[in-house]
Amino acid sequence: MQWRYATKKYDATKKVSQADVDKIVEAIRLTPTSSGLQQFRLLVITNQEVKNQIVPIAFGQQIVADCSHLLVFAAWDRYTEERIVSMYDYITVERDQPADRFNAYTERLKAKYLPQEAEENFIHTARQAYIGLGLAMAQAAELKVDSTPMEGFDNDKLDELLGLPAKGLKSVLLLPLGYRDEAGDWLLKMKKVRKPTDEFLTEIK
Amino acid sequence: MQWRYATKKYDATKKVSQADVDKIVEAIRLTPTSSGLQQFRLLVITNQEVKNQIVPIAFGQQIVADCSHLLVFAAWDRYTEERIVSMYDYITVERDQPADRFNAYTERLKAKYLPQEAEENFIHTARQAYIGLGLAMAQAAELKVDSTPMEGFDNDKLDELLGLPAKGLKSVLLLPLGYRDEAGDWLLKMKKVRKPTDEFLTEIK
Repeated sequence: MQWRYATKKYDATKKVSQADVDKIVEAIRLTPTSSGLQQFRLLVITNQEVKNQIVPIAFGQQIVADCSHLLVFAAWDRYTEERIVSMYDYITVERDQPADRFNAYTERLKAKYLPQEAEENFIHTARQAYIGLGLAMAQAAELKVDSTPMEGFDNDKLDELLGLPAKGLKSVLLLPLGYRDEAGDWLLKMKKVRKPTDEFLTEIK
Repeated sequence: MQWRYATKKYDATKKVSQADVDKIVEAIRLTPTSSGLQQFRLLVITNQEVKNQIVPIAFGQQIVADCSHLLVFAAWDRYTEERIVSMYDYITVERDQPADRFNAYTERLKAKYLPQEAEENFIHTARQAYIGLGLAMAQAAELKVDSTPMEGFDNDKLDELLGLPAKGLKSVLLLPLGYRDEAGDWLLKMKKVRKPTDEFLTEIK
């Protein structure tokens, strides 16, 4: 965590190995999510033309084109009965449990989320993607792969470009992966600054 | 990430060492956040009486009492000019930069967040706490410390118990830390289930 930083310039000639990308994707796939519903999906973009198209959508930030792999975290636009039930149907099959094992639980989830507006659902589903972002950055840093967490892009335009509305998904976060351009990155030379522990932490003993 | 699971029963006699807790707290403190503002704070509760008081607030879940350390992630209830400016004042001092180095940037942040309602601010600040949750679970698992991510508790009652409103904070997440009670935990024996990679992941090559 001391090693990592939000890389501002990537060496476009260096690519992350498939083995390392697989490990990062797997860490994200294993993200624990609220009620185990896995409310987000992951897109991994290596197509250069698509990455180039995302530069203006990301307000001109060149890192989305220069990075090796561009990760997109996209959350469910809303809860549906099918999404809730299908996950628990899958769990009962995988665990060889009776099909009705989770009926009472899924009824509670449906009663909680389905009456809400889609916007309120999305406040909750989007949060889960941020857990995955944390795990992705930790796994990447362990592999000495650089990454840049990004909220700053035009979500609607990205959704349209990637065909997310048809999948019931909305983009939440971008995470370029790659290798820093040591000479060209102004942030690399800067001290990492965080509030000191005595201000950040309260202990109740 | 394969090792970890949402521990459902802790061995109340086993305590996490201060050295390990320090590493987990430090991973959380180093969480990258939107615009570097560190929109959340951490509370670490070991006081048994306080942990016991949180059991009913967490709908009777005994793990908050039986765990070794109870972490509370609490996010800013809203953005303020003071919060934005003080962080960048601190950064310029730590990096030995001119005091006005970030003036244009903080003006943009203020123009973006201050006109919003507190509720809209909090949607954004709360998301940052989830990044920290991901990093905390990764660090804990690396140390073979068990943890349980929890959204399910009465936020308002917990805020009141911990005096968070006076600090301009609202609770977002709980993360008990400790060691699993292997005999008593029904979930430990269950297969970890996630959607398969071909369903979770879309590659754009």
